[in-house]
Amino acid sequence: MVSRFKRILIGRPMKSSEIEGEKLSKLKALAVLSSDALSSVAYGTEQILLVLMVAGLAAVWYSIPISIAVLGLLLVLILSYRQTIFSYPAGGGAYIVAKDNLGVSTGLLAGGSLLVDYILTVAVSTSAGTDAITSAFPSLHDHRVSIALVMIVILTIINLRGITESASVLAMPVYLFVIAIFILIISGVVKFMAGGAHAAVPELGTTVSNISLFLLLKAFSSGCSALTGVEAMSNAIPNFKQPAERNAAKTLIMMGTILGAMFIGISLLAYWYGIMPNEKETVVSQIANATFGRGVVYYIIQGVTALILFLAANTAYAAFPLLAFMLAKDKYMPNMFMARGDRLGFSNGIIILGVLSAMLVIAFHGNTENLIPLYAVGVFIPFTLSQLGMMVRWFKLKPSGWKTRLIINTIGMLTTLAITLIFIFTKFSHVWMVFIFLPLVIMLFYGIHRHYMNMANELRINLTEDKPVIKGSTIVVPIAGITRVVNHSLSYAKSLTDNVVAVYVGFDDEDIERMDKKWEEWNPGVRLIVLRSSYRSIIRPLMRFIDTIEWKTSETDHITVLIPQFITKHWWHYFLHNQTSLMLRAYLYAQKDVVIATVPYHLRK
Amino acid sequence: MVSRFKRILIGRPMKSSEIEGEKLSKLKALAVLSSDALSSVAYGTEQILLVLMVAGLAAVWYSIPISIAVLGLLLVLILSYRQTIFSYPAGGGAYIVAKDNLGVSTGLLAGGSLLVDYILTVAVSTSAGTDAITSAFPSLHDHRVSIALVMIVILTIINLRGITESASVLAMPVYLFVIAIFILIISGVVKFMAGGAHAAVPELGTTVSNISLFLLLKAFSSGCSALTGVEAMSNAIPNFKQPAERNAAKTLIMMGTILGAMFIGISLLAYWYGIMPNEKETVVSQIANATFGRGVVYYIIQGVTALILFLAANTAYAAFPLLAFMLAKDKYMPNMFMARGDRLGFSNGIIILGVLSAMLVIAFHGNTENLIPLYAVGVFIPFTLSQLGMMVRWFKLKPSGWKTRLIINTIGMLTTLAITLIFIFTKFSHVWMVFIFLPLVIMLFYGIHRHYMNMANELRINLTEDKPVIKGSTIVVPIAGITRVVNHSLSYAKSLTDNVVAVYVGFDDEDIERMDKKWEEWNPGVRLIVLRSSYRSIIRPLMRFIDTIEWKTSETDHITVLIPQFITKHWWHYFLHNQTSLMLRAYLYAQKDVVIATVPYHLRK
Repeated sequence: MVSRFKRILIGRPMKSSEIEGEKLSKLKALAVLSSDALSSVAYGTEQILLVLMVAGLAAVWYSIPISIAVLGLLLVLILSYRQTIFSYPAGGGAYIVAKDNLGVSTGLLAGGSLLVDYILTVAVSTSAGTDAITSAFPSLHDHRVSIALVMIVILTIINLRGITESASVLAMPVYLFVIAIFILIISGVVKFMAGGAHAAVPELGTTVSNISLFLLLKAFSSGCSALTGVEAMSNAIPNFKQPAERNAAKTLIMMGTILGAMFIGISLLAYWYGIMPNEKETVVSQIANATFGRGVVYYIIQGVTALILFLAANTAYAAFPLLAFMLAKDKYMPNMFMARGDRLGFSNGIIILGVLSAMLVIAFHGNTENLIPLYAVGVFIPFTLSQLGMMVRWFKLKPSGWKTRLIINTIGMLTTLAITLIFIFTKFSHVWMVFIFLPLVIMLFYGIHRHYMNMANELRINLTEDKPVIKGSTIVVPIAGITRVVNHSLSYAKSLTDNVVAVYVGFDDEDIERMDKKWEEWNPGVRLIVLRSSYRSIIRPLMRFIDTIEWKTSETDHITVLIPQFITKHWWHYFLHNQTSLMLRAYLYAQKDVVIATVPYHLRK
Repeated sequence: MVSRFKRILIGRPMKSSEIEGEKLSKLKALAVLSSDALSSVAYGTEQILLVLMVAGLAAVWYSIPISIAVLGLLLVLILSYRQTIFSYPAGGGAYIVAKDNLGVSTGLLAGGSLLVDYILTVAVSTSAGTDAITSAFPSLHDHRVSIALVMIVILTIINLRGITESASVLAMPVYLFVIAIFILIISGVVKFMAGGAHAAVPELGTTVSNISLFLLLKAFSSGCSALTGVEAMSNAIPNFKQPAERNAAKTLIMMGTILGAMFIGISLLAYWYGIMPNEKETVVSQIANATFGRGVVYYIIQGVTALILFLAANTAYAAFPLLAFMLAKDKYMPNMFMARGDRLGFSNGIIILGVLSAMLVIAFHGNTENLIPLYAVGVFIPFTLSQLGMMVRWFKLKPSGWKTRLIINTIGMLTTLAITLIFIFTKFSHVWMVFIFLPLVIMLFYGIHRHYMNMANELRINLTEDKPVIKGSTIVVPIAGITRVVNHSLSYAKSLTDNVVAVYVGFDDEDIERMDKKWEEWNPGVRLIVLRSSYRSIIRPLMRFIDTIEWKTSETDHITVLIPQFITKHWWHYFLHNQTSLMLRAYLYAQKDVVIATVPYHLRK
């Protein structure tokens, strides 16, 4: 039943050899891997305006130079990451690059921030997508958290089904979004050319009395949230079709161009139309409304915006399980993240990501404003570490033309470092959690690593010296009466060794005497030991008896406790049997060094 | 940790032989077993007035003749149950008496109604107790459900600690309640003698235009809710000190006398003071207020009323587990209700009762008015069946003086039957659930019985013919590599039989070749079989392999699958290991007829 339900939800299991078919072409990769970056335009401009608003309407014109600065940063990042792709064709996420060049601890810092960041990607994107919906349909405002959660569940299922299938599902909306935003920008520009700017818009260069450098930096760093997601490409190179690096690099540049154009376009329109952020309606919704009115085109734009934001979360669904796999392979995360599921995806990573991001959405009530700073700082820490790693790499390897490359990465490192510091400096109240959470995650990584290393040492054997040793054997069979099950268990035990003891726990003299007599009558050729329990517990006297046997014979013999187990035909019959055998097994596992053999007895009715 | 917490909450485990010390003296039995019956006076009169109110203030005088009728019924019940106690000294609950004389089905009907009824006792009593508290402190009115739930939790813990200890805890409040109510009645009567009746009170015999026989019957049946709990004594005879029957009978009469006097007293005062039911204040609270004002005495009366109502629930905690035990002994309920816990109580029954009654309180929002009719009908069905059973018994056995006894029980049967019918007739909208629920419970009883009987037949052996049979043995050891654990498992397997096969599941050719080579190098004297998995699943190829072995050798050999199991030192390490062995075991249990032996390996770090 469960497995049939799983089959419908997830699809048929796939062979390991089918994995090559799952590789991505450039266009599909653009859809799967860039929706995170592209969708950032839905909130990037808004984040800048939110900060500038504090200094009054006149300060709004600063959004244009700030947007241009963000654009410059985008260029730096694209160039830097292009170099990373060629240097690390097997996948050059910040974790790999930092670990490779800066040592394990730095790598874990980058990896930890990225993992946290991917969880935030899902939370932020689904929340922002919900905002796009509630801007169009204000009556849904109260159901924000539920809408976001439903989206997370749907994304989790799509990803459990496998990568290409989700690429097919996801490609269309991404293209539609790009087309819709470009139509919006072009129409907006045409309309502006025809009608001129909004009356209240301050001219570029207007002096604003109460603007401070602090505020401008804060606005700039807020705008940088539009750049989250740029790194996804470099992490996922193994998912590309051959030649993987070249395809990935080309896709990266394609994405950067589209992203830059859309971002500056939206920022310009917001400025020209004099749009101010508003809790109930997003900036993009306001622009679309001002350009087309609340007609069909408006609803299409809101629809595809919502769609791409939900799908942006999908970037994290591609990246998180892959990074978790790499950390698990290096023994810093549990083994289970290495297992590919029925559909060849890393199911455990997908599921964990879904659960954690859903918890974040619930904890923050789907409120994007509070999540975005956390999200951005989680991105810029690995950005910086990755660039620093590349710098060290150029120094060490010194390939031809390494100086230019070093300069590119140095500029990248300095800008991203500056932005990280600006974030921490201007938004400490939002991002302090990172400084508690990251050290904890890194400690956990090390703890896990230590455990695996200790275990490997403990289990390693010397192939030439350590061989199986043959010893004697004692089998203990606890019984509760004389039944077909007991007969079956004793047959089994006697087939293995002559050293078999049946044990019965009696509660009073009468009981014990009756059992003794019946056993004598049956005479199965096995010695019966009767224990007396004053506390109605079967487990305790049995454990004490096994202690005695262990003390006497464990040097010479393997000790086996044989436990009969009823397997009921219907699950609800389970409650009709005292689960003494389960209890006994749990105790024995935890406390004794004996083998526990379960003789199943399948009840026919 | 868990067990230490349990120790503090429940107390040290007790020996089975300590059970004699748990028997009840008459005075203690009165406290433990009669609080249900005695506490009914807290709501009995109120239930009558609630119905009469519908016909207007003038109809209130009918409460006096109705109360007298209830008193008559009480006398009939006490006499009938006195006969039951002497006939069934081992415990003569309705289940036993009905089953014994009227057949199993009728017995199960009585038993089922009683079980339901005990759950309702807890729900009604804790809710009514909460009413007494909120009458005194109206600000607590909104926390009714929470207060009732806390009380259920406390009662459950007290009962898990054991009977006598709870008797000591409970005896005092019951005596205090009886004293307090008598002081209230005497003071009330004295005050009435001095001051006369309330101005608005209608005289006895006033003609009321719109009163109907239906309404009077309904009021009478409502008043009968004061008699719930009378049967508790006869069910619990084995809990009495010797001579148990005589002590039980005496206690029953003591209880009847006290109950009757209190009930008629409260009814008279309510009439004299012209008290009308009120959603926010109970009738007893109003009487106490009218007699003493809201002073210390008032609060004491409310306090002990609340206390005894909470403790009334305790009657059910004594009765429910005992009845469940009897049903389980007859194989109509799961075995687990037969196990005595650390403190000699039937812990499972106590816990189940607590959980179910808490669910009822939540479902009905702690509203007594809706619960009481359900409760009363649940009591009067077994009352009737028990009397009918006694009638049949006198006919069959015909002991000396059987005719008088037959007459007493016949009167009892007819009155309780009449009241049951009146209940169904006048309050169908409240009690219809019983007619759905009871058949379901009885079907469940039969289903359980069938399962146990089938199992017993399946397991029974012929002591002279069925003996253990010695066969060969094949041991299959699934391995994931060559480690200390594998060496240990092979040592064990080779000690038992020469027929050992190690099985490895490989995912690609490289992997398989590497394993083959390493095995050859190790050469442990055991054949290695390597399976290839195209689906990354270890379980499926293994299961197929075991199928093959089963098909080949199960005629001649016992097949054992040996599974190594890591026992981690800290519980959280559990998550660091793929639980393949658990999965494999679960599959094997459910689907194969092989013995599953677990070789524990305790990790040192």
